[in-house]
Parts: sequence; structure tokens; C-alpha cells
Amino acid sequence: MRNLAVVLVSGGMDSAVTLAIAAQKHNIAMLHIDYGQRTEKKERECFRKLAEHYTAKHKLIVPMEHLKLIGGSSLTDPNIEVPTGLCEQGIPNTYVPFRNAMLLSIGTAWAEVLKAQYIYIGATEEDAAGYPDCREEFYRAFNKVIETGTKPETQITICTPVIHMDKTQIVKLGYKLSVPFHLTWSCYIREDIACGECDSCLRRLRAFKSANIKDPIPYIKEGCV
Amino acid sequence: MRNLAVVLVSGGMDSAVTLAIAAQKHNIAMLHIDYGQRTEKKERECFRKLAEHYTAKHKLIVPMEHLKLIGGSSLTDPNIEVPTGLCEQGIPNTYVPFRNAMLLSIGTAWAEVLKAQYIYIGATEEDAAGYPDCREEFYRAFNKVIETGTKPETQITICTPVIHMDKTQIVKLGYKLSVPFHLTWSCYIREDIACGECDSCLRRLRAFKSANIKDPIPYIKEGCV
Repeated sequence: MRNLAVVLVSGGMDSAVTLAIAAQKHNIAMLHIDYGQRTEKKERECFRKLAEHYTAKHKLIVPMEHLKLIGGSSLTDPNIEVPTGLCEQGIPNTYVPFRNAMLLSIGTAWAEVLKAQYIYIGATEEDAAGYPDCREEFYRAFNKVIETGTKPETQITICTPVIHMDKTQIVKLGYKLSVPFHLTWSCYIREDIACGECDSCLRRLRAFKSANIKDPIPYIKEGCV
Repeated sequence: MRNLAVVLVSGGMDSAVTLAIAAQKHNIAMLHIDYGQRTEKKERECFRKLAEHYTAKHKLIVPMEHLKLIGGSSLTDPNIEVPTGLCEQGIPNTYVPFRNAMLLSIGTAWAEVLKAQYIYIGATEEDAAGYPDCREEFYRAFNKVIETGTKPETQITICTPVIHMDKTQIVKLGYKLSVPFHLTWSCYIREDIACGECDSCLRRLRAFKSANIKDPIPYIKEGCV
């Protein structure tokens, strides 16, 4: 019998490729967090379709709308504008404070109840320059928190299979694994047609172009990337 | 100017004494988590009254009702009965999987936004036999997660001032610090008059008796403790 892995799935391409990798080895429990981000409706639709595609054994959507109360990010606070253009330096205002720790804590709690042995998350160090909670060091530290903070018989390990890949490599690997990229969404701003202008759209477009693969989702504008 | 500390306040006596300790040194931001526990209404009332008493600068109540969806604990799943009597061995069914990691993640996110430098939590190693996420080792590991997963300029340290105290010592210290114990609640089962029979009531009653201090809250039954 294949063992069980909890996979954190936002609906974006990094987590979809991570899901494809996990599904090769494990039965899947898919976890999605609704933290009140602007494009939640679209992300949730992608989550549901990906769950069907990969025949997830369990799925759970967790509302964390309190992140709006905490604020501090343009993704959750409508009063802070999401910047357009590639953000190459510093921590962008799309950073949601300590988000990945909150996701992993919930993932661990669920994994402990389901007796799952792995938690997959599609973090990449490419993002780590901007988002401190995408660093490998952070995940190693979190594994120690799991080891010390769960029941003695619980064995859960965080897996970050794409952490050392750049977005071009992720697109190429996803293509090889037949990831249904048309069921993923990356735009930070719009839900109908991707804007093509926010940092997340620009990174995605650049990656597909550099991988020489056609991105199947529609864009308003496929600018210079 | 005094710096700011986030204090996790459940409404129980350990967190109230922890709050009193923090309030001696810092301005206070009080955080309460509603995880759908049976006695939430009463706990929330205690939280509000304690916030007034200690003139908290900020307060935040975070709904985490998804813990009901995750289940695995008698405190959040109405289908699992809360046991009566002292639970001296093993992990009781009142254990909410990885709860303290979820609380600390939210606390850290809030602390990062507020630029608070400390997070206080009233965990005790006396509870750690039953609840793995009450061990000092767990908090040390969590500090490393904060260090690696937040902005470089963020400096947040978790403080566990009562971790090595037993409940009797906590009652004595709280008495010395004039903690308003009448504004705290420990019963796992009832919200009007404490049952006096659940593990949490029995531990509290035993601690007050051993400290030779009168517990100001009402009990249905003050059995042999």
C-alpha cells in the first residue's frame, strides 16, 4: 500500500508540479488555504480541478481570513496596491508575514490526524530572496519543530522537491510530468484573464518562454519578459 | 518607551499568570485563538476582561474553526468525549494536534506586523508529558523557525516564563502578582460553573489547595484532589 502525503496546493504552477511529483510516489491529501487573497476564487477552482485530476484521497480547504486582520501584505490588504513589474530586490509587499509557517502548522496537524508521513510544499529558493519563509534552512528548522512538537509515534517530514529549481526548470519538469498547466493560476490581481503585468505573471511568462513551451492560460498582455 | 510583546491568552490560569509577568516589562498585544473548543464563549469573556484589566494596547481574536475539520481531539470534536478524572499517563484525547505551533505561527505573523519583539506563551513542562508541544525543546526549535522564516530585520523571541513551574508554583506566583484569578477559566466541559471533574479542573483545584489559596471561581463539585 502506498503511504499518504499531505500536499499544500495553492493553485499556482510550483505547487501543481510539486503535486505531480508527490503523486508519483504517494496517495495524496490535498490542502488549500484561503487566506483572503485577492484571487482566492480562481485558486480554489484550480485546487478542485487539480484534486479531480490527481484523484486526491482527501482534500481540505482551510479558511484563514484572519490574515486580513493581521494585514501587512498587499495580497491580503485591499488598501495596499499589488505592484506591477518584476520585483528583483528586497522583500515585496506581496510577502504575507510568516505565511508558510502557518500553512505548515496546519499541514502538520492534519498529517498527524491522517497519519500521513510527508508534507509537500512547492517553495523555491528563487522566491527566497524576497520571501524569507522559502529558504531551505527554514524548512530544516521546521522539521525540528515537527519532531519536537508531535506525538512520539508521529513521523512527518517536509519535502520541498522544487526548492533548488528556477521557474524555467519547474515548467520543463511539469511538462515532462504532464502537469495540466491550464488548471493552474499565478496572477496576483485578476481572476478571469491573467494581467500579464504583476510580478507573478511576469515570472511565469518568462519561465514558459525560456522553456520554449506555450503557457495555456490566457493573458491580457504578454509584455516584454 | 517600553517595547511590545504579543501574549497568547487562552483565558486559563497559566496564560493569565504569563500575561501578568509580561505586563511588568512590556506593552501588551493580546492574542486569543478560537479553535472551536467547547468552552470558547467563556474563554473569550475571560480574554476580554483580562485585556481590560491589563490595558492591552492591541487585542486580536483569531477564528480557527478549521481545527474542527481536522479533528483528532475531544476539545474540538463533539463526537469524542472529554474524559473525567486526572489523566496522568500518555497523551490524552484533549490533545489538539500541533496546536501550539499553529498558535505561535499566528502570533509570529502578528508580532512581525506590529514589530513586537517577544511572544509570551504559558506552556508548562508539567503538561508536556501529555502534550508534546509544551516541551522547552519545541520552543527552542520554534525560535529557529522564526529566525529563518521572517524578515532579516525582524527580531522575535518566544518567552515561556512558567515552563519549569508546576501548577502550585503558578498559583503562588499569580497570587503574588495579583492576577485576577476570578477572570480565568480552566474547565474543559462547562461554561457556567466549573465541573470540578475534568482533568483541567482537577489540576487547578489541586494546585490552589496545595498553595493554600482559595480559588475564586465556582465549582459544582470540589472532589478529592
